[in-house]
Amino acid sequence: MRAVAARGGQVSRAAVAAEVGLTRATVSTLVDELLAADLLVELGAQRPGTVGRPGTALALNATGAAGLGAEVGVDHLAACVVDLRGTVRARTQVEARNRERPAADVLRELATLVRQMTEEAAALGMRPAGLTVAAPGLVGRDRHTVLRAPNLGWEQVAVAELLAIPALPVAVENEANLGALAELWLGGHDDIADFIHVSAEIGIGAALVVDGRLFRGARGFAGELGHVPVRPDGPHCSCGAHGCLETYAGEEAVLRAAGIDPGQPDRVKALHTAAADGDEAALSALRAAGQALGIALSGAVNLLDPQAVVLGGPLAALAPWLRDAVERELAQRVTDRLWPAAGGVLVSRLGRHGVLLGAAYSAVRAVLDDPAGWAAR
Amino acid sequence: MRAVAARGGQVSRAAVAAEVGLTRATVSTLVDELLAADLLVELGAQRPGTVGRPGTALALNATGAAGLGAEVGVDHLAACVVDLRGTVRARTQVEARNRERPAADVLRELATLVRQMTEEAAALGMRPAGLTVAAPGLVGRDRHTVLRAPNLGWEQVAVAELLAIPALPVAVENEANLGALAELWLGGHDDIADFIHVSAEIGIGAALVVDGRLFRGARGFAGELGHVPVRPDGPHCSCGAHGCLETYAGEEAVLRAAGIDPGQPDRVKALHTAAADGDEAALSALRAAGQALGIALSGAVNLLDPQAVVLGGPLAALAPWLRDAVERELAQRVTDRLWPAAGGVLVSRLGRHGVLLGAAYSAVRAVLDDPAGWAAR
Repeated sequence: MRAVAARGGQVSRAAVAAEVGLTRATVSTLVDELLAADLLVELGAQRPGTVGRPGTALALNATGAAGLGAEVGVDHLAACVVDLRGTVRARTQVEARNRERPAADVLRELATLVRQMTEEAAALGMRPAGLTVAAPGLVGRDRHTVLRAPNLGWEQVAVAELLAIPALPVAVENEANLGALAELWLGGHDDIADFIHVSAEIGIGAALVVDGRLFRGARGFAGELGHVPVRPDGPHCSCGAHGCLETYAGEEAVLRAAGIDPGQPDRVKALHTAAADGDEAALSALRAAGQALGIALSGAVNLLDPQAVVLGGPLAALAPWLRDAVERELAQRVTDRLWPAAGGVLVSRLGRHGVLLGAAYSAVRAVLDDPAGWAAR
Repeated sequence: MRAVAARGGQVSRAAVAAEVGLTRATVSTLVDELLAADLLVELGAQRPGTVGRPGTALALNATGAAGLGAEVGVDHLAACVVDLRGTVRARTQVEARNRERPAADVLRELATLVRQMTEEAAALGMRPAGLTVAAPGLVGRDRHTVLRAPNLGWEQVAVAELLAIPALPVAVENEANLGALAELWLGGHDDIADFIHVSAEIGIGAALVVDGRLFRGARGFAGELGHVPVRPDGPHCSCGAHGCLETYAGEEAVLRAAGIDPGQPDRVKALHTAAADGDEAALSALRAAGQALGIALSGAVNLLDPQAVVLGGPLAALAPWLRDAVERELAQRVTDRLWPAAGGVLVSRLGRHGVLLGAAYSAVRAVLDDPAGWAAR
C-alpha cells in the first residue's frame, strides 16, 4: 500500500516487487488480497509500447476506504471526505460563533456535518475508515478529549463522546499538528522530514516534525512558537508575558497595524487585498510580522536544526509579503551559515484547508499502515 | 548489567531476576558469564538478618573495564579514567594555549595524557574499553572528525587518526553533548529524560536530551541556544547577528560587565569570589546574564516542552546568583502555566568536570550496552 501510495498515480506489480524486495509471486498474492479488500484497483494495460506482456497498472482505489475529517474553528465548523489518494471528494463548512455556546451544542452541529459527509461518501461508493477532529487546543493522550482550548473557552471536553457517532473510530488532534502532518504527507516536499510548520489563525499555530514524526514534547505542549519572546519588553500578550511573537505576527496585531477591523468577517481576505493593492499600512504591517516571525524562527532553527520552515495555513497566501523579511532575519541569525541547504523557507501549497485535509488523511494513513486490519473489519 | 547499574551499589541475583523477568537459574547463568568477564563482582553475604540462605550481593566490578575520556578545551587539555560504576579513578589536566598551535601538536600532547591515563588504569588493574574525546565544535557523523571548531581555529581535523592510539576504539563528540549525557547518566535526576542542558565556557554550550537520547537535528547543529535572539537589536555578536544570548550571558560579556579582565587565568573563580563577596558589579552582571538566559530558555521551553532545564558546567557554581532571574523569566514567559511540574530549573551536581566525565562514561556505556561484545574482545 505504501509503495503504491508513494508512486502517486499508477504502478506495476513488477515495480512494487522491485521496491519492496519481494518476489513477483508474493506481491501478486498480496495485491490480490488488497484488490479483494477494495483498497487497490487495476487500471488496464500499462504502457503498451514496452517490451513483454502488457501488465495492468495498480492504483489506490478512489472509491474504497475514505477518511473523514472535521474541524472546530473559533468561528467556523467544517468537515470533509478524502479518498485513499488524498483527494478531497466532498467538503462542507458553516460559520458558527463557537466561543459563545456550550461545547455540546458545537459538537452536535459538527456531528450533523459529519453525517452529511458520511452520506456523501456512501453516495460516492466509499466506506469511511475513521474520523479525526481538529481542535485549536491541547488534546489528551487518549486522543478523545480536548483538555484546554482557551480560544473556544473549552476545558476538559470529551469530544469523541459528545459527537456520539456510532461505528466509526474517532480521534481528536491539535489543529497545528494536523496542519504539519498534512504538509508532511501531502505537501509535495519529498525529501523534507524535519521541519517547523507555522500557521496563523487567531493565534500562531506551529508544530515540529522531526524525522517524519510529530515532536510533541514531554507533556504535549511543544511547538508554542507564538509565545517565543521576540522583544522581551514588547507589548503585553494575552498569555501574560511581554513581546511574544503573537503580539507582532498574530492575526489581530497584523490587522490592527494594517488598519483593518479585526472583528470584520472577511478580515484576512481584506488584508490580502490591501497588500495586493500596494496599501502601505498593510505592506508595512506584513513586513513587521515577517520580521518578528523571522526572529522567532531563527531561535527555533538554532535550537532544532530542521531542514526547512514551512509557512502554511493563512500565512501561505500572505507569503509574498512576509517571506523576504523572514528570510532576511534567518540569513542574519542562523548560526549554521549553510543552513537553507535542503529546504529553507517553503510556502505550503495546501491552501487554507490544510488542517482539515490533515485530519481526514490521518484516518486514511491508519488504513495504509494496517490494510489487513481494515480488510478484516 | 543495566539492572545492576541502575541499582547503584549492590543487588542480589533474585532482585535482578525480579527486575528483568527471567528465572533465577537463567540469571545465575548470565551472572556467571559476567563474573568470568570481570564485569561483575560478588561482595559476600548480603543482609545477614534476612530470612533464607544468605545470597551474595552483585556489584559492577570497579577494577574491570574502564572508560577513558579526554577533553580539548580552548586553554586546557584533560583526560580521565572512570570505572564501570561511573567513579573517576584518575584524572589529569594541563593548561595549554590550543588556539595558537596546530591541531596535530594539540592532539600529540593529548595523546600523552591519554597514555598516562592508560597506565594509571593498568596500575589499578583496569582494562580500557574505549576513549571518547570531547571537543568544542561540530563533529562529523563518523564520530572521528571535528568538522569545525571556531574557538580552536579547527576545520576538518581527523582527531582519531591524529591521536594515533592503537588498539582502543576512539570516538569524538561535541562537548556540550557530553555534558548533557553526563547529566542524563550520572546527574542523579532519575525521572528526567527530557531536558535542556546549558553550560558556558567561552561560548554558551547547550544540548537537548529528548526521551533519554541526544537530539541532534537534521544536520547535527541542534542546541545552539547561545545564538537564540534575546533582544534583536542588541549588541553585535561574534556570529555576525545582534543580541544573541551569548552577547548577554557568554563568559566574556559577563566578565566585562562585572569589571573582570576576560584575559586573566582564574577569571571564572574571580567572578565567583566577587559575587560571594557581594560585589555589586558582579551581582548585577550575573542577574543580567540570568535574565537573558531565562528569556532564551523561555522560548526553548515553549518550543520543546522539556521536563527541566539543567544549569551545568561553570554555570552550576554560579547558579546561586543566576537562578532567581532565570526562574522569574520562565515563570512569566512559559505558556504552560503548570510547567515546572517535574523538574523546572535544576543545578548540576557534577561540577566543572561533567564534560570529561561524560566522555569517559560514554565508553563505559558501550560496555553496559553490549557486555557480550566486550567479553569476546
